[in-house]
Amino acid sequence: MNFDNILYGVAYYDEYMPYDRIDTDFQMLNDAGMNVIRIAESTWSTWEPQEGVFDFTHLHRMLDCATKHDLKVIIGTPTYAVPSWLARKYPEIIAVTHNGQELYGHRQNMDITNPDYLRHAQIIIEKLMEEVMPYDCVIGFQLDNETKSYDTCTKYAQAKFVDYLKEQFPDINEFNHEFGLDYWSNRVDNWDDFPDIRGTINMSLDAEYKKFQRRLVTDFLAWQADIVKKYKRDDQFITQNFDYEWHDYSFGVQPEVNQYEAAKCMDIAGCDIYHPSQGSFTGREITACGNIARGIKGDNYLVLETEAAGNHPWLPFPGQLRLQAFSHIANGANMVEYWHWHSIHNAIESYWKGVLSHDLKPNRLYRECCVIGNEFKKYGSRLVNLKKTNKFAVIADNASLTGLNEFKLNNESDSNYNTVFRWLCDALYLMNIEYDVIPADPALFASYDNILVPALYSATDEVLNALDAFVQNGGNLVATFKTAFSDEHLKIRSEVQPYILNKALGITYDEFTLPVDVTVTYGGKTSQARDWMEMVDCKTATPLAMYGHKHWGVHAAITENSYGKGKAMYLGTLFGEETLIEAFKHFFGEQTNEFAAEYPVVVKRGVNALGENIIFLMNYSDDSQSVTCQTGSYKKLYDDCAVNKGDVITLEPWDFVILYN
Amino acid sequence: MNFDNILYGVAYYDEYMPYDRIDTDFQMLNDAGMNVIRIAESTWSTWEPQEGVFDFTHLHRMLDCATKHDLKVIIGTPTYAVPSWLARKYPEIIAVTHNGQELYGHRQNMDITNPDYLRHAQIIIEKLMEEVMPYDCVIGFQLDNETKSYDTCTKYAQAKFVDYLKEQFPDINEFNHEFGLDYWSNRVDNWDDFPDIRGTINMSLDAEYKKFQRRLVTDFLAWQADIVKKYKRDDQFITQNFDYEWHDYSFGVQPEVNQYEAAKCMDIAGCDIYHPSQGSFTGREITACGNIARGIKGDNYLVLETEAAGNHPWLPFPGQLRLQAFSHIANGANMVEYWHWHSIHNAIESYWKGVLSHDLKPNRLYRECCVIGNEFKKYGSRLVNLKKTNKFAVIADNASLTGLNEFKLNNESDSNYNTVFRWLCDALYLMNIEYDVIPADPALFASYDNILVPALYSATDEVLNALDAFVQNGGNLVATFKTAFSDEHLKIRSEVQPYILNKALGITYDEFTLPVDVTVTYGGKTSQARDWMEMVDCKTATPLAMYGHKHWGVHAAITENSYGKGKAMYLGTLFGEETLIEAFKHFFGEQTNEFAAEYPVVVKRGVNALGENIIFLMNYSDDSQSVTCQTGSYKKLYDDCAVNKGDVITLEPWDFVILYN
Amino acid sequence: MNFDNILYGVAYYDEYMPYDRIDTDFQMLNDAGMNVIRIAESTWSTWEPQEGVFDFTHLHRMLDCATKHDLKVIIGTPTYAVPSWLARKYPEIIAVTHNGQELYGHRQNMDITNPDYLRHAQIIIEKLMEEVMPYDCVIGFQLDNETKSYDTCTKYAQAKFVDYLKEQFPDINEFNHEFGLDYWSNRVDNWDDFPDIRGTINMSLDAEYKKFQRRLVTDFLAWQADIVKKYKRDDQFITQNFDYEWHDYSFGVQPEVNQYEAAKCMDIAGCDIYHPSQGSFTGREITACGNIARGIKGDNYLVLETEAAGNHPWLPFPGQLRLQAFSHIANGANMVEYWHWHSIHNAIESYWKGVLSHDLKPNRLYRECCVIGNEFKKYGSRLVNLKKTNKFAVIADNASLTGLNEFKLNNESDSNYNTVFRWLCDALYLMNIEYDVIPADPALFASYDNILVPALYSATDEVLNALDAFVQNGGNLVATFKTAFSDEHLKIRSEVQPYILNKALGITYDEFTLPVDVTVTYGGKTSQARDWMEMVDCKTATPLAMYGHKHWGVHAAITENSYGKGKAMYLGTLFGEETLIEAFKHFFGEQTNEFAAEYPVVVKRGVNALGENIIFLMNYSDDSQSVTCQTGSYKKLYDDCAVNKGDVITLEPWDFVILYN
Repeated sequence: MNFDNILYGVAYYDEYMPYDRIDTDFQMLNDAGMNVIRIAESTWSTWEPQEGVFDFTHLHRMLDCATKHDLKVIIGTPTYAVPSWLARKYPEIIAVTHNGQELYGHRQNMDITNPDYLRHAQIIIEKLMEEVMPYDCVIGFQLDNETKSYDTCTKYAQAKFVDYLKEQFPDINEFNHEFGLDYWSNRVDNWDDFPDIRGTINMSLDAEYKKFQRRLVTDFLAWQADIVKKYKRDDQFITQNFDYEWHDYSFGVQPEVNQYEAAKCMDIAGCDIYHPSQGSFTGREITACGNIARGIKGDNYLVLETEAAGNHPWLPFPGQLRLQAFSHIANGANMVEYWHWHSIHNAIESYWKGVLSHDLKPNRLYRECCVIGNEFKKYGSRLVNLKKTNKFAVIADNASLTGLNEFKLNNESDSNYNTVFRWLCDALYLMNIEYDVIPADPALFASYDNILVPALYSATDEVLNALDAFVQNGGNLVATFKTAFSDEHLKIRSEVQPYILNKALGITYDEFTLPVDVTVTYGGKTSQARDWMEMVDCKTATPLAMYGHKHWGVHAAITENSYGKGKAMYLGTLFGEETLIEAFKHFFGEQTNEFAAEYPVVVKRGVNALGENIIFLMNYSDDSQSVTCQTGSYKKLYDDCAVNKGDVITLEPWDFVILYN
Repeated sequence: MNFDNILYGVAYYDEYMPYDRIDTDFQMLNDAGMNVIRIAESTWSTWEPQEGVFDFTHLHRMLDCATKHDLKVIIGTPTYAVPSWLARKYPEIIAVTHNGQELYGHRQNMDITNPDYLRHAQIIIEKLMEEVMPYDCVIGFQLDNETKSYDTCTKYAQAKFVDYLKEQFPDINEFNHEFGLDYWSNRVDNWDDFPDIRGTINMSLDAEYKKFQRRLVTDFLAWQADIVKKYKRDDQFITQNFDYEWHDYSFGVQPEVNQYEAAKCMDIAGCDIYHPSQGSFTGREITACGNIARGIKGDNYLVLETEAAGNHPWLPFPGQLRLQAFSHIANGANMVEYWHWHSIHNAIESYWKGVLSHDLKPNRLYRECCVIGNEFKKYGSRLVNLKKTNKFAVIADNASLTGLNEFKLNNESDSNYNTVFRWLCDALYLMNIEYDVIPADPALFASYDNILVPALYSATDEVLNALDAFVQNGGNLVATFKTAFSDEHLKIRSEVQPYILNKALGITYDEFTLPVDVTVTYGGKTSQARDWMEMVDCKTATPLAMYGHKHWGVHAAITENSYGKGKAMYLGTLFGEETLIEAFKHFFGEQTNEFAAEYPVVVKRGVNALGENIIFLMNYSDDSQSVTCQTGSYKKLYDDCAVNKGDVITLEPWDFVILYN
Repeated sequence: MNFDNILYGVAYYDEYMPYDRIDTDFQMLNDAGMNVIRIAESTWSTWEPQEGVFDFTHLHRMLDCATKHDLKVIIGTPTYAVPSWLARKYPEIIAVTHNGQELYGHRQNMDITNPDYLRHAQIIIEKLMEEVMPYDCVIGFQLDNETKSYDTCTKYAQAKFVDYLKEQFPDINEFNHEFGLDYWSNRVDNWDDFPDIRGTINMSLDAEYKKFQRRLVTDFLAWQADIVKKYKRDDQFITQNFDYEWHDYSFGVQPEVNQYEAAKCMDIAGCDIYHPSQGSFTGREITACGNIARGIKGDNYLVLETEAAGNHPWLPFPGQLRLQAFSHIANGANMVEYWHWHSIHNAIESYWKGVLSHDLKPNRLYRECCVIGNEFKKYGSRLVNLKKTNKFAVIADNASLTGLNEFKLNNESDSNYNTVFRWLCDALYLMNIEYDVIPADPALFASYDNILVPALYSATDEVLNALDAFVQNGGNLVATFKTAFSDEHLKIRSEVQPYILNKALGITYDEFTLPVDVTVTYGGKTSQARDWMEMVDCKTATPLAMYGHKHWGVHAAITENSYGKGKAMYLGTLFGEETLIEAFKHFFGEQTNEFAAEYPVVVKRGVNALGENIIFLMNYSDDSQSVTCQTGSYKKLYDDCAVNKGDVITLEPWDFVILYN
C-alpha cells in the first residue's frame, strides 16, 4: 500500500481532556506539520455509557475539527476495553485465565470467545462505523488494539480447544501418542475427560493451547475486519496495532499472536515500537521490530504508536526525537505517530508521557516535532514508500518461541527465544547489513542469499527439508543451537540431531549442558559461552571455534560446512556479540558500504517511487562522527549538495544526513 | 495531658505464662523501678472462650496483683483479634481483601465494617469495662491495637465507599470527569454498575479508596471511644497504639491511618517505635517517629511499645537500652513501655523477645532496666511533660504518601514518600535541629519560621496558597520534587508546575526523568541524583546547584528564591544526605548549639513544669565523645555539678548527660 | 537383606517409547552388563485407560522381554499419578493445599486420605499384582513413588487431624495451654470450632499438622504394603523410593516423611540421590544422603534412581559416571539404577536426561555404563552387601527440621536445619571419617563413641536425658546452637538453656542475635559467624573460641566440657567448614587412615560376606592424586597386585582404586 506522503501525527483523546482545547490542539498539530490523528479505540464506555445509549459527541467534535484542520483520521474500534455496565451484566465476559478470574478495571482482560462480549462488540463497531462513514477525513481503521487472547481459559475457550484437537486427531490414540500422554498418567481416552488445560505439565499440550490462543486472535480480528468491510470505502485501509514481546520496551517476536496469519484480513501492517532512549538509544529496536513489521505483509508499515517522552527513563536527549522519527522512515515505515499527544491526568498511564506534558503547553519536544514535521512536509513525498531488496533474512517463529518458553534454555537466566533472535539480528545491524524478518515459510526462502535461523526449536519436516534445499541450491544458512529439535507439537525428534539439517550443517550432537567457565574465541575476540551449549561433533563441517574448556574442548562451538552449492554455519552456544560478528565477517565476507560507515554510524537505504536511491547515514551516539565517501556520487536531500568520492560527511551527535542518487 | 512522673513498664500477659509466677514478676517490676503495665488487648478468646461465656480470671489476677504492687494499669480493648467461635459462626467477619478472603488465625484480619463483628466487639468491650471499673490502679484505656482497615474490601465496605462517593459527587458526570474515567472505558454512568474496586487501574480511584479506608479507621476508633466513655472515670485517659510505615522497623508516616483525624476522640497520643540496634542504633527513628507522635495531639505522648531485646538483629549492646529509654524522654515521651515483659513460648512472636528471655530469669537486659527505672524514679518528675518550642516543621501527609505509592518514583527502587520525608527529617536531625511534624494544615503554618515539605504530591489550592502566604510573610520554605503535582483526588494539575508554588519557588519545569549518572554538588559535597529528577528552570530563583550531566546540566537541582519577606528552596531530585546538609546550612544558616555538639552527639531539650530547661547530650556511637560548653551555665541533673563555658563533657559510648538551668 | 550381586540398571518405560524398540533396548542393557529394570510406577492411566478397563500390554511386553533377556524387574505400584477419568469423576481427589485446590495434570497432587482415591488405588494395585505374580523375573515391589502427603488440607485430612489432637489431649484446656493458644485470641474451647489449619500463626500447631501429615504417609505406605503382601512371594522384597530435601539436588533430611517410621512395613530401604556434577561433583551428597538411606533400616540400601545425564548442568565429565556408581557401592548401596534409560520426548521431564539421549543411539554415557556394568559383573559379588561399623553418628530429626522451618535462623538467608545437618556431616566427610545417620532414638546411642547433634530444636526430656547419659558413660557429644530449645510440640522450654544438656555441655545462654561482623577462629582458621549466634557462657566448660567482636567477645563460640566419663562440645553459631574441621581435629583427635589420604581423595570401607575388608580410594578432582600406603598389606581388587607400606597409588582424575585384605 502506497501513500502520498509520510503520515506524521498523534493519538488524540478529546474525551480525556481536562478542559475544552481541541481547536488549540489541532492548530498546534498543523503548526508542527502533523497530518494525522488516531482516535476512538480506547473508550467504548464513552461511546455507549449505558447499554444501548450512544453518545458520539467527542467523536464528532474530533472529526469535525479534523476536517477543519485538514487532518487525516484513523478510527480504532473500541473493543479492547469494556464498559462497566457490560461487565456487571455479564460477569463471565471478564476472562478466566491461568491466574483465575480477572477483575474488571484493566483493559484487555475479556474473553474474546464469550458470545455476549462478541454480540455487544459487534453493536458498538457497527454504530461507530455508521457515525464515521460520512467523514472524508477518515483514511483507515485500526481493528481493536494490541489484540491478544488475554490468556482466556474460560469454558468457551477450552471447549473450542478440545474441538480443535479432535479435528486434528480423529484417533484419540494418535493424540495420546503424539503428545506423550502416557507420561505421568496423563492419558485422555475419552474427550469428555479432558482436564482443565491450566494444570497440565505436558509442554506439548501447553504449547498447543498457546498456538490455539493465537488462532483465536486471528479469528477475532478476521471477524472484526468482516464487520468493518461491510461499511468502509475502498480507499480506506484496515490495519492493526501489533506489538512485540515486552522487556521494559519492545524487544522482539510477539509470543501471543501469529502476526503473519492475523494480518491476512488487513491492508497494511501497523505496530507500536517503544525503545530505550538517552544513552541507551541504539536504533536496534527500531530496526529489529520494524523489520518484523515490514515482514508481516512484505511491504511498508505504519508505526501507529511510539514514544514522545514516554516512560520515566526515556525522556530523549536533544535531537533524539528527530533521529527516532527518521529511523522509522529509513527502515520502511510510512507513518510515525506518537502515543500520545497529551500526557494524561488520571490513571495508570499518567506517567507514560506524550508530546505535551501535563501543563499542555508547547515544550522542548513539541518544538522538535515542529522541525521533524516540517522536514516531512518538504521531503516526505520522496521518503515515503521506500522499497528495500534485502539479501539477508532472519526467521521469526512463534511456535519455536513458545517451545523455548516451555523448556527454558537456563532456569537461572531470562534468556529466551528473542534473546537468540535479537542476537542474530543485532549482529547484522551492527555490521550495517539490512535484513528482512520472515516466517518459516519455504515459499520465501528462494528470495534470499542468506538465511539466519535462530533456535527453530519446533519445525516440520517440510520446513527443514526446504532449508536443506536452500543450502543445496547455493544459499548461506546460519542456524543456532536448538534448531530442528522438536516437531510441530513440541515432540522431541527421536532421530540424529539436528534433525534433517545435520547433513547441510555437517555436524551432529547428542549431549548439551550449561556452560560453566567455557569460552568461545574467533577472529581474536573471546567471550563467555552462556545458558546452553551443545557438544557438537563435525562430520563434514569444519570447526571455526572449539569450546575453551578442559573436557568440552573436543567439541565445536562454531562450525562451517560446504553443502551442495551453498554453505551452512552452526552456532552451538550463545556467546558474545563481538565474537559473533567476527564469525559472520568470515562466513558472509566483509560487508562494506559506500561510506565505510561503522556503527554507531548506521546506513539504511531504499528506493522511492521516483526510482531514487535514498541513503540514510545516522549517528547513534553522543559524539560527532565522520565518514568518507568511498565510491559513487550522491546529493544531499535537503540542499542538493554533491557528495563524491573522498568527501567527508560529519554527523553531529544523534544527527543524520539523507543522500540520494 | 500531664503526668506526675515518667511511666515505665511493660506489656504483661498473665494468660500466656507457662506457669503461675505473677507475684514474682510484679516484684521484679517493682525492683526495677517500673510503675505501669498494659494488659488485656490481645486475648478476646481468653475473656470470652465461648459465645456469651466470660472468664476474667487472668484479668482479675493481674489487677489485684497490680494493686498489691502499686502498679498502674492501662487496659487495652481486645478487639483486634477475634475468637475462633466468632469466626466460625460468622465466616464473613474475616475480611475479603485485595488478596481474597483471608483465613482465621492471624490478628487484624477482620472486616471492621461487619455488623456481626461490631455487635460482638461492643459486648466484649462493655463486659471488660464493667470488670475493670472498680480498680483504682487503672489509669487509662488503649482502644484496640495498631488499628487499620486491614484492607477490607467486603461488600459492606465497598457499599459504604459508593455512598461516600455519591455524597462527594451528586453529579455522576463530575465524578467521571474528576477521576478521568473515560480512560480505558472505565466510566460509571450508573452507581449500580460500580465495579469491584480491587480491579481498578485508576490511581485516583484507588487512592480514594485508601483514603476511605483511613476514614473507616477514624470512625471505628471513635465508635470504640464512645463505648469506653460510657464507663470510664474522668481521670482515666483514652489513647491508641499508633504505628508507622514498617521497613523491618518503624520508619515513617503510617499509610493506612490518618492519625490526626483518628486521635480526635483520644486524650493523649500513643505509639510503638521499633528501631535498629547494635551498630545501626542512630536515634533517627526515635526522633522522626516520636516527632510524628508528638505532633498528633501537639503534646507529649506515650511510647506504648518499644523493644527490649526485640527481633533477631536487635539485641542491644551494653548501654543501648538505657540510651534508648532516655532518647524517648528527651524527645517528649512521657512513657516507655517494653513489648513485652517475657519472651513467649509459642506462636509467631516467640522470637520477638521481651525483657526476660524464655527462661524467665533476671538477665543482662533486666539489670539495665533496673538502672533506668531507678533513674526515672529519682529524676523522672523533672523529665516528664517536657515541652518543646520548635521553629522547624516537616509536613507529613498520607494522601501524598498514597500518591507516591500509586505512582512510584522509580519502579526499580523502593524509594517512596517516607524516603523523602525521612531524607528531610534526618538532615535536620544530623544538624542537631529539633523539629515538629505537622499535617498539611494551614492553621499551623504561622507557628513556624521554617517549613519543610516532602513531596506534597496531593494538595488542595487552599494548602498551596497557604504555603505561598507563609513565604510571603517571611517564612523559609523547603519543598521537594513532586510537590503540588496533583489535586486531592490525584488528578494531575493541567497548569504550570509546581502548581501555585511556582511563584514562591521562582521556578518551573515540564520534564522529568530517571537520573542516570547525574550528580549534585553543593558546599564541596558531591552525590548521585537518584530515582527522580525534574528539569527545573529558574525564573526568579537562583540555582544553588545545576545537574552534573552533559545534557541535563542546563537545569537546576537546587534552587533558592526570595519571595515577599521570605525565601523558598526547591529540591528537584533526591541526592545524598551530606550534600543536602550543606545546602541546608546555606539556606537556614549554620545551626549552632551551646556545646558545638555534632552528630553522633545529639542535643535535645525541653522545659519542664518547674520551668527548668532540660538539655540532653547523647552519644550515639561506639566511641567516647567530648564536647565543650561554649556559652551559658548549667548543672548536671544527676549530681548538680556545674558546667560552665570551657568545661569539657565526656560521653562514654552509648551514654548521655542531662543538664538543666 | 543381602543380594548375590550388585543390581545395576535403569527405570524403563516402554509406554513412553516413540516406536517399538524394546528388544534393542534390552539387548543394550545386557551388553552393558545391566541386570535390573524398574517399571510401571508412573502410568496408571496406561494400565487403566478408562474406569474398570484394563490394558497391560506394555507391562507384559516388558516382563516377557525381561524374562527373555534375563533381567530382574522391580514393579512400582502406579498410585502417585492419577488418570484423568478418575479426577473428572471425583474432583475432590485432587488435593486442597495451602495453595488452594490444585489442578489435574501434575503427579503427586492427590489427597491420600480421600476414600474414592484409596478405593480406586486398591483396585489398580490388586489388578497389577495379579498380572505380575506369574513372572519369576520380578524380584520386588516399590510402593508408590517419593510418597508425601502433598500438603493435603482437605476436609478429610483436617477432620483426621482434629481426631488426632483429641486423642493426644482429652482435656481441651491442656491442648490450649501446651500450644499457647491464648496468644492472639486463638483459643479453641470447643473442638467443633477448630479453624482451617491453613490460617494458623501458631507454629506449634502448624508443626503438629506437618507431623500429622508425615503420619499420613506412614499410614498410606503401610496400607499399600498390606495389599502387596496379600500377593507377593516370600523371596520378593518391598521397598520405597525415598527422597531428600531438594536444593536443586538431593540435599539432606526429608521434611515430609518420617522415613524411619514409614520404612517399618518394608524389607529394604530405597532412595533416589541426585547430585551436582562436573566441577561440583564432590561425593558429599552420595555420602550424606546415602548414609541417611543406610540408617533407615540400619542396612544396605537400593539407589532406585540417580542421574545418568540428568539435569541441564549435570552432564558428567568423562569418568564421573563410573566414579558416581562406585561411590554408591562404597557407601553401602546394593543397587545403582539410572533414572532413566531413555530421554523422553514430551512433557515436563524431557530435559531430565537418561542414559540415552533423545536419538536413542549408543553414546558416550552408554559406553561408560558398559565399563561399569562389566566391572560389576566381574567384581560385584565381592562388593555387594558391604557392612560398615561406624563409631560416629549424626542425628537426623525431622521434627527439629520443621522447627527450624517454622522459626527460621535468619529471615534474610536460606540456611535451615539441613544446612546445619550437612555442616556436621560434611566436616566428617572431608576428614575421611565415615558416619551413620540415626534418628533421635535413645536405644541407638550406646552403639557409638561419638554422636553429633545438629540443632535438635524439638526434643523430649527422654531424648535429652539419654544424650546426657551418653556423655556420662564416656561418649563424645557435639551439639550445635538451638539444640534442646523446645519440646515435642515446639513449645519453647521455660528453663535454663540448653535445656537438660546444659550440665553435660557445661554452658548456658539466655541471649542470641544475628552475627554482624563476628568471627570465629580456631586452629589458625578464621571464618565469619553467620545466621545465628548464642551468647554462650561457660560454667564448667572450657571455651575453645570466643566470638571475635567488641561486645560479644565475652561469650564463647565453641566450648568443650568434660562430663562423667565423656566430653561434650557446643557450637554456638554457624561458621566456616575449615574452622569446624580444626575444632573437630582437636575434639575427636587427628583421624588417620592407612593411606594418609586427604580429601579430594576419599577412603571408604566395608566388609563383604566373605569377610574381606574392601577399601575404596576415590579421587574427587580434576587432577591426578597420589597416596602412599602407611601401614598394612592389601591387594588391588581388579588385578590382585599387592600394595604394601610405602607403595604409592596414583589416582587419575575422577578415578578410584579398590583394595582388599
